[in-house]
Amino acid sequence: MTYKATRISITAEKLLEDGIIKIVEEAGATGYTVIEGSGKGAHGLRTRDRPAVVGAFSIVKIEVVTADHDLAERIAEKVSTKYFGNYSGIVYLDEVEIFRPKKFGGQ
Amino acid sequence: MTYKATRISITAEKLLEDGIIKIVEEAGATGYTVIEGSGKGAHGLRTRDRPAVVGAFSIVKIEVVTADHDLAERIAEKVSTKYFGNYSGIVYLDEVEIFRPKKFGGQ
Amino acid sequence: MTYKATRISITAEKLLEDGIIKIVEEAGATGYTVIEGSGKGAHGLRTRDRPAVVGAFSIVKIEVVTADHDLAERIAEKVSTKYFGNYSGIVYLDEVEIFRPKKFGGQ
Repeated sequence: MTYKATRISITAEKLLEDGIIKIVEEAGATGYTVIEGSGKGAHGLRTRDRPAVVGAFSIVKIEVVTADHDLAERIAEKVSTKYFGNYSGIVYLDEVEIFRPKKFGGQ
Repeated sequence: MTYKATRISITAEKLLEDGIIKIVEEAGATGYTVIEGSGKGAHGLRTRDRPAVVGAFSIVKIEVVTADHDLAERIAEKVSTKYFGNYSGIVYLDEVEIFRPKKFGGQ
Repeated sequence: MTYKATRISITAEKLLEDGIIKIVEEAGATGYTVIEGSGKGAHGLRTRDRPAVVGAFSIVKIEVVTADHDLAERIAEKVSTKYFGNYSGIVYLDEVEIFRPKKFGGQ
Protein backbone atom coordinates (compact mmCIF):
# COMPACT_ATOMS: atom_id res chain seq x y z
CA MET A 1 0.00 0.00 0.00
CA THR A 2 1.41 3.36 -1.00
CA TYR A 3 0.32 6.98 -0.72
CA LYS A 4 0.94 10.17 -2.64
CA ALA A 5 3.22 12.76 -1.12
CA THR A 6 5.03 15.88 -2.24
CA ARG A 7 8.78 16.36 -2.24
CA ILE A 8 10.14 19.89 -1.91
CA SER A 9 13.64 20.40 -3.34
CA ILE A 10 15.48 23.58 -2.49
CA THR A 11 18.91 24.35 -3.93
CA ALA A 12 20.53 27.42 -2.42
CA GLU A 13 23.76 29.03 -1.35
CA LYS A 14 25.11 27.37 1.76
CA LEU A 15 24.91 30.58 3.79
CA LEU A 16 21.11 30.37 3.50
CA GLU A 17 20.92 26.87 5.01
CA ASP A 18 19.98 27.89 8.55
CA GLY A 19 17.37 30.38 7.41
CA ILE A 20 15.73 27.90 5.07
CA ILE A 21 15.65 25.17 7.71
CA LYS A 22 14.02 27.63 10.10
CA ILE A 23 11.25 28.20 7.55
CA VAL A 24 10.86 24.44 7.02
CA GLU A 25 10.57 23.74 10.75
CA GLU A 26 8.33 26.67 11.57
CA ALA A 27 5.97 25.66 8.76
CA GLY A 28 5.49 22.36 10.56
CA ALA A 29 7.43 19.83 8.50
CA THR A 30 8.60 16.89 10.58
CA GLY A 31 11.95 16.38 8.91
CA TYR A 32 14.35 17.29 6.17
CA THR A 33 17.52 16.15 4.47
CA VAL A 34 20.49 18.37 3.63
CA ILE A 35 23.05 17.45 0.98
CA GLU A 36 26.16 19.49 0.22
CA GLY A 37 27.10 20.22 -3.35
CA SER A 38 28.40 22.72 -5.80
CA GLY A 39 26.81 24.50 -8.71
CA LYS A 40 26.55 27.40 -11.01
CA GLY A 41 24.03 29.89 -12.35
CA ALA A 42 20.37 29.98 -11.55
CA HIS A 43 20.58 26.57 -9.92
CA GLY A 44 23.34 27.40 -7.53
CA LEU A 45 25.60 30.35 -7.13
CA ARG A 46 26.43 33.33 -9.20
CA THR A 47 29.85 33.36 -7.62
CA ARG A 48 31.11 36.31 -9.63
CA ASP A 49 28.52 38.56 -7.98
CA ARG A 50 29.59 38.02 -4.39
CA PRO A 51 33.06 36.50 -4.34
CA ALA A 52 33.94 37.64 -0.82
CA VAL A 53 30.81 36.35 0.83
CA VAL A 54 30.59 32.71 -0.10
CA GLY A 55 33.01 30.04 -1.17
CA ALA A 56 32.86 29.47 -4.89
CA PHE A 57 30.12 27.05 -5.85
CA SER A 58 29.20 26.02 -2.34
CA ILE A 59 25.54 25.07 -2.21
CA VAL A 60 23.13 22.91 -0.26
CA LYS A 61 20.21 20.90 -1.51
CA ILE A 62 17.46 20.59 1.09
CA GLU A 63 14.69 18.05 0.61
CA VAL A 64 11.43 17.70 2.52
CA VAL A 65 8.78 15.05 1.89
CA THR A 66 5.28 15.64 3.18
CA ALA A 67 1.83 14.15 2.67
CA ASP A 68 0.43 17.69 2.99
CA HIS A 69 0.63 19.39 -0.42
CA ASP A 70 -0.45 22.77 0.97
CA LEU A 71 2.39 22.66 3.47
CA ALA A 72 4.79 22.00 0.61
CA GLU A 73 3.48 24.99 -1.31
CA ARG A 74 3.69 27.24 1.74
CA ILE A 75 7.32 26.30 2.35
CA ALA A 76 8.19 26.82 -1.31
CA GLU A 77 6.50 30.22 -1.40
CA LYS A 78 8.14 31.41 1.81
CA VAL A 79 11.64 30.33 0.80
CA SER A 80 11.23 31.82 -2.64
CA THR A 81 9.84 35.12 -1.38
CA LYS A 82 12.34 35.58 1.43
CA TYR A 83 15.54 34.57 -0.34
CA PHE A 84 15.36 34.12 -4.05
CA GLY A 85 14.83 37.73 -5.03
CA ASN A 86 18.33 38.54 -3.81
CA TYR A 87 20.14 35.21 -3.89
CA SER A 88 20.45 32.56 -6.55
CA GLY A 89 18.59 29.38 -5.84
CA ILE A 90 15.66 27.28 -6.87
CA VAL A 91 12.73 25.60 -5.26
CA TYR A 92 10.51 23.02 -6.92
CA LEU A 93 8.00 20.33 -6.04
CA ASP A 94 7.29 16.90 -7.39
CA GLU A 95 5.01 14.06 -6.46
CA VAL A 96 6.30 10.81 -4.97
CA GLU A 97 4.78 7.57 -3.78
CA ILE A 98 5.55 6.88 -0.12
CA PHE A 99 5.46 3.69 1.93
CA ARG A 100 5.20 5.02 5.46
CA PRO A 101 2.62 7.81 5.61
CA LYS A 102 2.70 8.21 9.38
CA LYS A 103 6.32 9.32 9.27
CA PHE A 104 5.44 12.16 6.90
CA GLY A 105 3.14 15.13 6.97
CA GLY A 106 3.26 18.53 8.43
CA GLN A 107 1.39 17.99 11.67
CA MET B 1 13.37 7.46 -27.66
CA THR B 2 12.75 7.27 -23.96
CA TYR B 3 11.24 4.74 -21.56
CA LYS B 4 9.49 4.85 -18.22
CA ALA B 5 11.37 3.71 -15.17
CA THR B 6 10.99 3.93 -11.41
CA ARG B 7 13.41 5.65 -9.05
CA ILE B 8 13.62 4.41 -5.47
CA SER B 9 14.87 6.99 -2.97
CA ILE B 10 15.87 5.80 0.50
CA THR B 11 17.00 8.22 3.18
CA ALA B 12 18.33 6.51 6.28
CA GLU B 13 20.80 6.65 9.11
CA LYS B 14 24.31 5.99 7.82
CA LEU B 15 24.70 2.90 9.99
CA LEU B 16 21.99 1.22 7.89
CA GLU B 17 23.82 1.78 4.60
CA ASP B 18 25.34 -1.70 4.28
CA GLY B 19 22.13 -3.46 5.22
CA ILE B 20 20.06 -1.48 2.75
CA ILE B 21 22.55 -2.04 -0.06
CA LYS B 22 22.44 -5.76 0.67
CA ILE B 23 18.65 -5.70 0.19
CA VAL B 24 19.02 -3.69 -3.03
CA GLU B 25 21.57 -6.10 -4.48
CA GLU B 26 19.83 -9.28 -3.36
CA ALA B 27 16.58 -8.04 -4.90
CA GLY B 28 18.37 -7.95 -8.24
CA ALA B 29 18.95 -4.25 -8.93
CA THR B 30 21.96 -3.66 -11.17
CA GLY B 31 23.21 -0.51 -9.52
CA TYR B 32 22.72 2.21 -7.00
CA THR B 33 24.00 5.61 -5.96
CA VAL B 34 24.85 6.66 -2.40
CA ILE B 35 25.01 10.31 -1.33
CA GLU B 36 26.06 11.47 2.13
CA GLY B 37 24.05 14.11 3.91
CA SER B 38 22.58 15.30 7.15
CA GLY B 39 19.05 15.67 8.34
CA LYS B 40 16.51 15.71 11.05
CA GLY B 41 13.25 14.12 12.06
CA ALA B 42 11.29 11.61 10.11
CA HIS B 43 13.43 12.22 7.05
CA GLY B 44 16.70 11.54 8.72
CA LEU B 45 17.74 10.98 12.27
CA ARG B 46 16.06 11.39 15.57
CA THR B 47 19.44 12.09 17.05
CA ARG B 48 18.13 12.72 20.53
CA ASP B 49 16.92 9.13 20.76
CA ARG B 50 20.24 7.44 20.18
CA PRO B 51 23.05 9.94 20.72
CA ALA B 52 25.75 7.38 21.47
CA VAL B 53 25.14 5.24 18.44
CA VAL B 54 25.36 7.55 15.47
CA GLY B 55 26.94 10.89 14.74
CA ALA B 56 24.42 13.67 14.90
CA PHE B 57 22.55 14.11 11.64
CA SER B 58 24.62 11.66 9.62
CA ILE B 59 22.49 10.13 6.91
CA VAL B 60 22.75 8.55 3.49
CA LYS B 61 20.46 8.87 0.53
CA ILE B 62 20.45 5.78 -1.64
CA GLU B 63 18.92 5.92 -5.12
CA VAL B 64 18.12 3.05 -7.46
CA VAL B 65 16.60 3.39 -10.92
CA THR B 66 14.96 0.37 -12.50
CA ALA B 67 12.69 -0.33 -15.45
CA ASP B 68 11.01 -3.01 -13.31
CA HIS B 69 8.35 -1.33 -11.14
CA ASP B 70 7.68 -4.51 -9.16
CA LEU B 71 11.34 -4.74 -8.24
CA ALA B 72 11.19 -1.16 -6.99
CA GLU B 73 8.18 -1.95 -4.83
CA ARG B 74 9.81 -5.08 -3.42
CA ILE B 75 12.94 -3.16 -2.44
CA ALA B 76 10.88 -0.39 -0.85
CA GLU B 77 8.76 -2.86 1.11
CA LYS B 78 11.76 -4.84 2.34
CA VAL B 79 13.72 -1.80 3.46
CA SER B 80 10.69 -0.30 5.14
CA THR B 81 9.74 -3.52 6.93
CA LYS B 82 13.24 -4.42 8.06
CA TYR B 83 14.47 -1.02 9.23
CA PHE B 84 11.90 1.71 9.48
CA GLY B 85 9.93 0.36 12.38
CA ASN B 86 12.92 0.93 14.64
CA TYR B 87 14.97 3.55 12.84
CA SER B 88 14.07 6.89 11.32
CA GLY B 89 14.14 6.95 7.57
CA ILE B 90 12.02 7.18 4.49
CA VAL B 91 11.57 5.33 1.25
CA TYR B 92 9.61 6.61 -1.73
CA LEU B 93 9.22 5.98 -5.44
CA ASP B 94 8.73 8.23 -8.41
CA GLU B 95 8.58 7.78 -12.15
CA VAL B 96 11.36 8.97 -14.44
CA GLU B 97 12.01 8.91 -18.17
CA ILE B 98 15.22 7.09 -19.03
CA PHE B 99 17.41 7.16 -22.12
CA ARG B 100 19.29 3.88 -21.85
CA PRO B 101 16.90 1.08 -20.87
CA LYS B 102 19.42 -1.72 -21.21
CA LYS B 103 21.50 -0.27 -18.40
CA PHE B 104 18.55 -0.48 -16.02
CA GLY B 105 16.29 -3.18 -14.76
CA GLY B 106 16.48 -5.82 -12.17
CA GLN B 107 17.48 -8.81 -14.26
CA MET C 1 1.50 30.26 -9.23
CA THR C 2 3.64 27.41 -10.41
CA TYR C 3 4.94 26.16 -13.75
CA LYS C 4 6.00 22.85 -15.18
CA ALA C 5 9.70 22.25 -15.75
CA THR C 6 11.96 19.30 -16.50
CA ARG C 7 14.73 18.06 -14.25
CA ILE C 8 17.67 16.25 -15.86
CA SER C 9 19.54 13.90 -13.53
CA ILE C 10 22.92 12.57 -14.67
CA THR C 11 24.88 10.10 -12.57
CA ALA C 12 28.37 9.45 -13.90
CA GLU C 13 31.94 8.67 -13.00
CA LYS C 14 33.61 11.71 -11.50
CA LEU C 15 36.19 11.89 -14.29
CA LEU C 16 33.37 12.77 -16.69
CA GLU C 17 32.20 15.77 -14.65
CA ASP C 18 33.94 18.47 -16.70
CA GLY C 19 32.87 16.99 -20.01
CA ILE C 20 29.25 16.70 -18.97
CA ILE C 21 29.16 20.23 -17.60
CA LYS C 22 30.57 21.47 -20.91
CA ILE C 23 27.66 19.80 -22.72
CA VAL C 24 25.17 21.29 -20.25
CA GLU C 25 26.55 24.80 -20.66
CA GLU C 26 26.99 24.67 -24.42
CA ALA C 27 23.40 23.46 -24.78
CA GLY C 28 22.30 26.70 -23.14
CA ALA C 29 21.23 25.69 -19.64
CA THR C 30 21.56 28.54 -17.17
CA GLY C 31 22.67 26.50 -14.19
CA TYR C 32 23.37 23.14 -12.67
CA THR C 33 24.04 21.43 -9.36
CA VAL C 34 26.78 18.87 -8.72
CA ILE C 35 26.66 16.42 -5.81
CA GLU C 36 29.43 13.98 -4.95
CA GLY C 37 28.59 10.41 -4.15
CA SER C 38 29.49 6.79 -4.54
CA GLY C 39 27.83 3.93 -6.32
CA LYS C 40 27.98 0.67 -8.10
CA GLY C 41 26.85 -0.99 -11.29
CA ALA C 42 24.87 0.60 -14.05
CA HIS C 43 24.08 3.56 -11.85
CA GLY C 44 27.62 4.43 -11.01
CA LEU C 45 30.90 2.71 -11.62
CA ARG C 46 31.91 -0.65 -12.76
CA THR C 47 35.05 -0.33 -10.74
CA ARG C 48 36.37 -3.76 -11.55
CA ASP C 49 36.70 -2.81 -15.22
CA ARG C 50 38.99 0.16 -14.79
CA PRO C 51 40.55 0.04 -11.34
CA ALA C 52 43.58 2.18 -12.20
CA VAL C 53 41.66 5.01 -13.75
CA VAL C 54 39.13 6.05 -11.15
CA GLY C 55 38.83 5.79 -7.42
CA ALA C 56 36.48 3.03 -6.42
CA PHE C 57 32.88 4.17 -6.41
CA SER C 58 33.55 7.87 -6.99
CA ILE C 59 30.65 9.41 -8.85
CA VAL C 60 28.90 12.72 -9.36
CA LYS C 61 25.23 13.44 -9.71
CA ILE C 62 24.56 16.46 -11.90
CA GLU C 63 21.10 18.04 -11.92
CA VAL C 64 19.71 20.66 -14.27
CA VAL C 65 16.21 22.13 -14.11
CA THR C 66 14.83 23.85 -17.17
CA ALA C 67 11.45 25.09 -18.39
CA ASP C 68 12.51 23.99 -21.89
CA HIS C 69 11.76 20.29 -22.30
CA ASP C 70 13.50 20.09 -25.69
CA LEU C 71 16.67 21.46 -24.13
CA ALA C 72 16.47 18.76 -21.47
CA GLU C 73 16.14 16.06 -24.11
CA ARG C 74 19.05 17.46 -26.13
CA ILE C 75 21.33 17.44 -23.09
CA ALA C 76 20.26 13.91 -22.17
CA GLU C 77 20.83 12.64 -25.70
CA LYS C 78 24.25 14.29 -26.02
CA VAL C 79 25.54 13.06 -22.66
CA SER C 80 24.23 9.57 -23.33
CA THR C 81 25.67 9.38 -26.83
CA LYS C 82 29.07 10.82 -25.97
CA TYR C 83 29.77 9.01 -22.73
CA PHE C 84 27.48 6.18 -21.82
CA GLY C 85 28.50 3.76 -24.53
CA ASN C 86 31.93 3.46 -22.94
CA TYR C 87 31.37 4.52 -19.35
CA SER C 88 28.85 3.51 -16.76
CA GLY C 89 26.29 6.13 -15.95
CA ILE C 90 22.68 7.08 -16.30
CA VAL C 91 20.64 10.01 -17.45
CA TYR C 92 16.95 10.47 -16.84
CA LEU C 93 14.30 13.16 -16.86
CA ASP C 94 11.33 13.91 -14.67
CA GLU C 95 8.79 16.69 -14.41
CA VAL C 96 8.76 19.16 -11.54
CA GLU C 97 6.66 22.15 -10.53
CA ILE C 98 8.73 25.31 -10.20
CA PHE C 99 8.10 28.59 -8.40
CA ARG C 100 10.45 30.97 -10.17
CA PRO C 101 10.23 30.42 -13.94
CA LYS C 102 12.44 33.36 -14.92
CA LYS C 103 15.44 31.77 -13.22
CA PHE C 104 15.09 28.64 -15.35
CA GLY C 105 15.09 27.89 -19.02
CA GLY C 106 17.69 27.37 -21.63
CA GLN C 107 17.93 30.83 -23.12
